Amino acid sequence: KMLRRVLCTMLLMGALPSLAELSQGHISVVLLGATGDLAKKYLWQGLFQLYIDQVSSGHSFTFHGAALTALEPGQKLMFDVLKKLACPPDESPNRCAVLKDQFLKLSQYHQLKTAENYTVLNREIETLLHQEGLKEAGRIFYFSVPPFAYTEIARHINSSCRPPPGAWLRVVLEKPFGHDLQSAQHLAVELTSFFREEEMYRVDHYLGKQAVAHILPFRDQNRQFLDPIWNRHHVERVEIVLKEIVDAKGRTSFYEQYGVIRDVLQNHLTEALMFLTMELPGNLSKAEEVLQCKLQALQSLRGLEKQSVVVGQYQAYASHVQEELQKGKDYVSTTPTFAGVLVHSDSLRWEGVPFLLTSGKALDERVGYVRVLFKNRAYCTQSEALRDAGHSQCKPKQIVFYIGHGTLSTPAVLVSRNLFRPIMPKSSWKEVVGQPDLHIFGQLLSDYYVYSPVKERDAYSVLISNIYHGRKDFFITTENLLASWAFWTPLLNSISHQAPRLYPGGVENQHFLDFEMVSGGLAFTVAEPVELLNPSGPMPSDYKTIQSKFRQSPLVSAWSEVLISQLASDVEKTASRAVARSGQFHLALSGGSSPVALFQRLARHHYDFPWRHTHLWLVDERCVPLTDPESNFFSLHNHLLQSIRVPYFNVHPMPVHLHQRLCVEEDGGTELYAKEIMALVANASFDLVLLGVGTDGHTASLFPHSENGLEGAQAVVLTESPVKPHQRMSLSLPLINKAQQVFVLVMGKGKHDITMQISRVGQEPRKWPISGVSPSSGQLVWYVDYEALLG
Amino acid sequence: KMLRRVLCTMLLMGALPSLAELSQGHISVVLLGATGDLAKKYLWQGLFQLYIDQVSSGHSFTFHGAALTALEPGQKLMFDVLKKLACPPDESPNRCAVLKDQFLKLSQYHQLKTAENYTVLNREIETLLHQEGLKEAGRIFYFSVPPFAYTEIARHINSSCRPPPGAWLRVVLEKPFGHDLQSAQHLAVELTSFFREEEMYRVDHYLGKQAVAHILPFRDQNRQFLDPIWNRHHVERVEIVLKEIVDAKGRTSFYEQYGVIRDVLQNHLTEALMFLTMELPGNLSKAEEVLQCKLQALQSLRGLEKQSVVVGQYQAYASHVQEELQKGKDYVSTTPTFAGVLVHSDSLRWEGVPFLLTSGKALDERVGYVRVLFKNRAYCTQSEALRDAGHSQCKPKQIVFYIGHGTLSTPAVLVSRNLFRPIMPKSSWKEVVGQPDLHIFGQLLSDYYVYSPVKERDAYSVLISNIYHGRKDFFITTENLLASWAFWTPLLNSISHQAPRLYPGGVENQHFLDFEMVSGGLAFTVAEPVELLNPSGPMPSDYKTIQSKFRQSPLVSAWSEVLISQLASDVEKTASRAVARSGQFHLALSGGSSPVALFQRLARHHYDFPWRHTHLWLVDERCVPLTDPESNFFSLHNHLLQSIRVPYFNVHPMPVHLHQRLCVEEDGGTELYAKEIMALVANASFDLVLLGVGTDGHTASLFPHSENGLEGAQAVVLTESPVKPHQRMSLSLPLINKAQQVFVLVMGKGKHDITMQISRVGQEPRKWPISGVSPSSGQLVWYVDYEALLG
Repeated sequence: KMLRRVLCTMLLMGALPSLAELSQGHISVVLLGATGDLAKKYLWQGLFQLYIDQVSSGHSFTFHGAALTALEPGQKLMFDVLKKLACPPDESPNRCAVLKDQFLKLSQYHQLKTAENYTVLNREIETLLHQEGLKEAGRIFYFSVPPFAYTEIARHINSSCRPPPGAWLRVVLEKPFGHDLQSAQHLAVELTSFFREEEMYRVDHYLGKQAVAHILPFRDQNRQFLDPIWNRHHVERVEIVLKEIVDAKGRTSFYEQYGVIRDVLQNHLTEALMFLTMELPGNLSKAEEVLQCKLQALQSLRGLEKQSVVVGQYQAYASHVQEELQKGKDYVSTTPTFAGVLVHSDSLRWEGVPFLLTSGKALDERVGYVRVLFKNRAYCTQSEALRDAGHSQCKPKQIVFYIGHGTLSTPAVLVSRNLFRPIMPKSSWKEVVGQPDLHIFGQLLSDYYVYSPVKERDAYSVLISNIYHGRKDFFITTENLLASWAFWTPLLNSISHQAPRLYPGGVENQHFLDFEMVSGGLAFTVAEPVELLNPSGPMPSDYKTIQSKFRQSPLVSAWSEVLISQLASDVEKTASRAVARSGQFHLALSGGSSPVALFQRLARHHYDFPWRHTHLWLVDERCVPLTDPESNFFSLHNHLLQSIRVPYFNVHPMPVHLHQRLCVEEDGGTELYAKEIMALVANASFDLVLLGVGTDGHTASLFPHSENGLEGAQAVVLTESPVKPHQRMSLSLPLINKAQQVFVLVMGKGKHDITMQISRVGQEPRKWPISGVSPSSGQLVWYVDYEALLG
Repeated sequence: KMLRRVLCTMLLMGALPSLAELSQGHISVVLLGATGDLAKKYLWQGLFQLYIDQVSSGHSFTFHGAALTALEPGQKLMFDVLKKLACPPDESPNRCAVLKDQFLKLSQYHQLKTAENYTVLNREIETLLHQEGLKEAGRIFYFSVPPFAYTEIARHINSSCRPPPGAWLRVVLEKPFGHDLQSAQHLAVELTSFFREEEMYRVDHYLGKQAVAHILPFRDQNRQFLDPIWNRHHVERVEIVLKEIVDAKGRTSFYEQYGVIRDVLQNHLTEALMFLTMELPGNLSKAEEVLQCKLQALQSLRGLEKQSVVVGQYQAYASHVQEELQKGKDYVSTTPTFAGVLVHSDSLRWEGVPFLLTSGKALDERVGYVRVLFKNRAYCTQSEALRDAGHSQCKPKQIVFYIGHGTLSTPAVLVSRNLFRPIMPKSSWKEVVGQPDLHIFGQLLSDYYVYSPVKERDAYSVLISNIYHGRKDFFITTENLLASWAFWTPLLNSISHQAPRLYPGGVENQHFLDFEMVSGGLAFTVAEPVELLNPSGPMPSDYKTIQSKFRQSPLVSAWSEVLISQLASDVEKTASRAVARSGQFHLALSGGSSPVALFQRLARHHYDFPWRHTHLWLVDERCVPLTDPESNFFSLHNHLLQSIRVPYFNVHPMPVHLHQRLCVEEDGGTELYAKEIMALVANASFDLVLLGVGTDGHTASLFPHSENGLEGAQAVVLTESPVKPHQRMSLSLPLINKAQQVFVLVMGKGKHDITMQISRVGQEPRKWPISGVSPSSGQLVWYVDYEALLG
C-alpha cells in the first residue's frame, strides 16, 4: 500500500513531474534511531525539507524510520514526531499542508533489531518498487545511533540491504568517530570492511552551518581582493571560537570520556580552520579537489605541544560527575570543559600566523565565529577626530564568519569597510544594516559590510540536501578524519593528567580564562586565583637562586626557570668577557633536552649576546644525519641557530656523516673535528663547555666503562651508548678538562638519584664519567635545579 | 663696577652662600647673538632660570650679551629683552623681583665684531676676576648666530677668549650643523681646529623637551617591567611624530635649502629614536657610556632606500618660494615639507620592528609624540561588553612619550593600564587624571596611567642647566652628528629630484598623506589625486622592461634597478613553482659584483621567498678560505645569507678548503661537491643556475681555452683564471646545461663590447665559454641592462 502512495503523491502534486523527471528513479531514506533526540530535533525536519525541495526533482521518495522498539509503540512514537514537523516560513501554508500530509503517508516505521528484520526491510523495498515498475536510484541509511551499535548495523546493511547494481548506497554517520587516533583507525577499518569510501558520509554538522559553509565560496568569489592578503604577510591572527553557556550536566557519562577538545576542537573547529587555511582549488565544484586541498592543509599543521594549550574545568563539573557517575567525593576529573589552543601551519602561506581555537562550556555567552584579523600597516597622518570612520586605513581590518547566536543572533559575514566590498551571491546572502551603534570585535557594526542569509537554514537540512546531491566535500572522509586525530591525539595524551584551571562559570569567570601567546605557546594571563588554588604553593623566596658548593665547586641552584635564566646570563657574561679579551668566544654545547630551555632563553632574551663573534661547537653527537630529528645539531639548529645570527663559518657540527655514511672509523671524522678545533681554538681550550649528566652518570657521550675518551691523547672519539642510537661522537674528557670554564646543567626529578650519588663519590670516571670533569686550570660550575637537588 | 655687583649680589641674597661654596668659582656666560630671535624667545629666559636655580650653588656669575650692533643701540635692545623676563610660576614674587634685579645688574652688553673686541672682552673678564680675587670656574659661549658666522667667532674665541688653565671652556652650538655628510664633516673639521670635543655642546633642543629627556630615565627606572618586552618579540611598531600647523612662509630662504628631513628628521626624530632603541647602559649617570650606546644604536640602523620614504609638499609652498625668493612662475621645488620614513634597526633587539618617523608642515594639528605600540598577544574569553576596561589584556598596549601640544597640550608619559604601573620620579612627574573621556591613540585617556611634569620647563632652560652641569649626554657629539648624517645623506641624495606629492594643507589633507608599509617600504594609501599631480612627471613607460630575443633566447632588458627587481621576482616565481612541484628549490649562484644587487633585493623585498625549502649552491668559487673577503661564498653570506633564514643544512659552499689547504687535487674537493649534488639534486639538474659573463666571455669559472669543464663527464672542475686568485673551482658546462632554468645577468657599460660580440657568434665555448650555455631541456633567459646592451 505504501507504493501506491508514492505514485499518488506524484500525481496529486501541483507541479506534475514529467516522465523524463520520473525516470530519475526512487530513493529510499532509512533513518536509524528514528525516535532519538537528534532525529526528533533536526533529522525528520531535515528530511521533510528535503522532500519539499525535491518533490519535483523527478525522484520519488519513501522514508523509513527504524529503531529497536517494537512496531506498534515505535510507530506511535515516530508519528508523534512527524505530526509536529514545522512548515518552513517561506513555504505557502497550503502547499505545505499538502506536502506534509504526503510526507507522512510516505513514511513508515520498522523495527530493526535482528538480521531477519533487515532482510524483511530490503524485501519490502524491492517488492514495492518492482510492483510499480520504478527504477531504484539509491538508498540513504542515516545512522543516528550510539557508536557501539555501528558495527552490527553496518554488517546487516552490507549483507542484506544493498541496492541492486546501478543504484547507489549512502550511509550517513554521526560522531563520535573514535576517541583518539587508534580507536578512530579501528572504527574506520571496521566500516571499510562493509562500505566503500564513496558510500560513507561522516557528518560534522558545523559544515552545514551557513557561515562555515560559505567560507570557501567567499574565498572563491572574492579572489581578486583576497589573493594579495590571504597570507602570513597580511594576516595577524585568526580566532576560531565556539562558546557555550550550558554546562555538561546530564551529559557527563559522555562528556567525562571526551572533554571539550574531542567534542568540539578535533572536529568542528578543525574543519573551520581547514576552510580558512587550505589552498583554494581552481574549481570549487570538484569535491575531489576540495577534499585533497583540505587534507593537505591538515597535514601541514605543526605538531602541538603541551605548551600549545590552556585548559579549564568549570568548578561544578566535579560534583556533576560525582552525582551522575556515582563517584566518590575524592574522585578527581581532569577532563577539560574549556580549552584554548594555539595552532600553527607550516605551509608557506601561513607560517608564523597564530590560529587560536577556543571552546568551552559554562561561559558567559553562546556564540560561534571565525575571525580573521589583518595586520595594521598604515599610519594615518590626520588626527583621530578627523578620520573618516569606516574607511580609515588605521581602523582594524577583519573578516568574520559569524556562525550564530551571540550579539548578532544570526549567521553573518562581516568585512571591514576599509578592506573591500565583498562579492556575495545575491540569491542566498543579503546586505543588512541592523544596529549601527553595536560594538562588535572592537568596532562599530557600521564599520563593516554585513551580510546575512536570505533564508536561515538549519545545519542538518543543509547537510541532508548535500547527501541527496552527493556533495562529498560537505563530509569528513576517512583520510581527513584520521589526519585530524593524528594531529590531536599526541596533545590529548600529553595533557591527560594535567589538572585544568578551575573556573567559576558564567559571567563570574571574569578574566580567569583569558590567555595569551608567550614564547611559542599559550598561558593564562592572570595567575591562578588564590581561592581556587591549593594553598601550598611555592613562596616567593622559593624562586631565589641559592649559591653553594657541590663536589668542591660552585653550585647554583633554583627552580628550573630561574636556574635557566641565571645560566643564560652567566653564559652571556662569559661570552662578553671572552670577546673583549680575544675577539672570539668558543662555546661547546651538549645535546639532550635540558639545554633546549637554555637555547630558547638565549634566543629570546639575550639581544646583547656577541653571536657574531661566537663559534659554536658540539660536545657530542649521535651518528645520524644532521637533518635527523635525533641529531643534537638539529635540535641546536631549531631552537637556537634559526633565531640568531651566527656567521655560517662559525658553526661547527660534528662530521658524523661523511661520504654518505655514518661514523665510519676510516672516514676520519674524529681527526677532522680535532684538527678543526686545533686550527681555530687557541690551545684547544674552549672558552666554555656546557655539559649535562645522564642518570647513569655519563656526560657528553662518554658512558661508564667507555673504551675511548675517558683518558688518553685523543681529542675527539667515537663511543657506544647503551641506548639508541648507539653510535656517538664525543669530545674526550682530557679535551673537556682543558676548557676555561665548564658549566654542568642538571635538571628534573629523574636526576635526583644520580645527583646524590655523584655528590658523594670521588674522581672515578670509569664508573661515573661526570666525576672525571675537573678542568685543569679552568673553572667548573654546577647548575642544579631544586628537583634534581632535593628530589 | 660689574664685579662689585657680583659680590654684592651674593651678600644681598637671603641664602647667604658660605665661603666654601663661594670657592666653587666664577662662571662667565657669553651669549652671542644676544638680541636675536632665539635669544629673545628662550635663551635669556633660560639663563635667568639658571641664575635663579644656581644662585646659592657657590658659583658666581656674570652674563655677557654680545652682537654685531654697536654698544649703545645694542645695550638698549638687550635690556629691553631682559626687562621682560618672566618669573617662574613656582618662585615667590618677592624673591624673584630681587633676583631679576640682580640678574640685570650682572648682565652687560658687548659689541663683538673685530678681533680687538674679543681681546677686550677677555681682558675685562680677567681684570674683574683678578680685582676681586675670585677663582675662575669656566666660561660658556653660546653661539646663537647663523652658521656662516661660526668659523670666525670660533677662531676669535680660541685665540683670545680661552680661560686660564684649570677653568673650563664650553661653547654651545645651534643647528644647522651642515647640510649633508660632507658639509657636516667640513664644519666638524673646522670646529675641531679651534675646540676640543669635550668643549663643544651641540644643541638639539628636542633633547631638552621633558618627555624626550625622560625616555632614558623611564627605561632605566622601569627595567623590571620593560626588560622582557622592550624588543622585537613584543613591540609591534614605533611612531615618532612631529606635526605642525604652520607652514614655511617667511622662512623659505632657509627651508628651500633644507626641507623637512634635514630640518626635523635628521636631528630631533633621530635623537628620539636613539633613546628608544639604544641598549641601556648600566649607569645612566655616566655620560660617556650613554653616548657610546647611542652611537652604536645609530650605527646599527639599516640603510634607507628610495622606497623607505614618502614625501609631500603643501600646495602653496611653490608660491611662497616664488614670492620670497624671487623665482619665476616656472620654478619647481622638490623640497619636501612632509615626510614619512620607515626605519629599521639591524640590532638583534629590534630586527624587523618598523619605526615610522613622520613630520610635516601645514598639517591639521600641532603635536609631537613618541609612541611604542606592543603586539597584542592575548585572547579574552569573555564578551567585549563584560571586559574590565583599563586592565583587559585585549586592549591595545602602548607607551607614549607625549612631547606636547595636541589634545593633551602638556608633556606627558602615558602607559596603558594593562601593561604596568610605571615607576616615576615623584619630584618631577605627577600622576594626573584629566579628561577620562578623551580619546587618544585609539583608547580612552582613563585606560592609561598618565603622568605630567610637576613643573613644566622650557627645553632651553633644561639644556642650559645641563650645559652648566656639564652633562654632555644631553648634546650631540661630533661622532653622533656624523653618524646621523651618514645615515640620512644617501636617502636625501636619492630623492633630491623626486617630485613630492602635493597636499592642500590643514584639515583639507584628509587621507592624502596616510601611508602604509608595503613590501619593505612605504607608499601612500590613496592614489595620487589627479588634480594635484604634476603633469610633467616621468611617463610610466620610461621604467618598463623590454622583452625581446638574444641569441635565440628570451631577453629581458631595463635600467639596472628595474632589471634587478624583475630578475628577483622571476627567481622567486621559479622558486615557488619548484617548491610546489617537488618541495625543494635548488639554486646555484655565481660570484662577482652583479649578483650582489640581486642578493640585496632578495633579502629585502621578497618575504614570500620559500627560503626554508631552498638549497643554495655555488656556481664557482675562488680558492681562498671561505672567510676571505675574496671568496664568492663570503659575499653571498654577507649580502644574503645573513638576512634570511635558510636552514644550515641547505647551504652548500664549495669545498675549496680541505685539510687546511686550498684546492689540492688529491683532497678530492671536486668529487666531494659532485657527490653532494648527486645525493641531493634530482638528476643533478638544478632548478635554477644564475650566471654572469666576463669581459673575456668567461662564465662561471670557465675561462676561454680552459682544459677542464667545457666538455666531458666531470660535474665539478678545478680551473685557472687569468686574473688573481688564479685557482678556481667551477661547475662544468655540461652540468650547467642540465639545469631546468639558466638566467644570465649582464650589467654595466664595461660589458657592452662582449655583449655585442656574443650576440653575433655561434656556439664556440672554447673561445667564448658563455656561448656554450645552452640547456639541453631547460630554458635560458638573458637579463641585460641598458648600459650593457646599448653602451
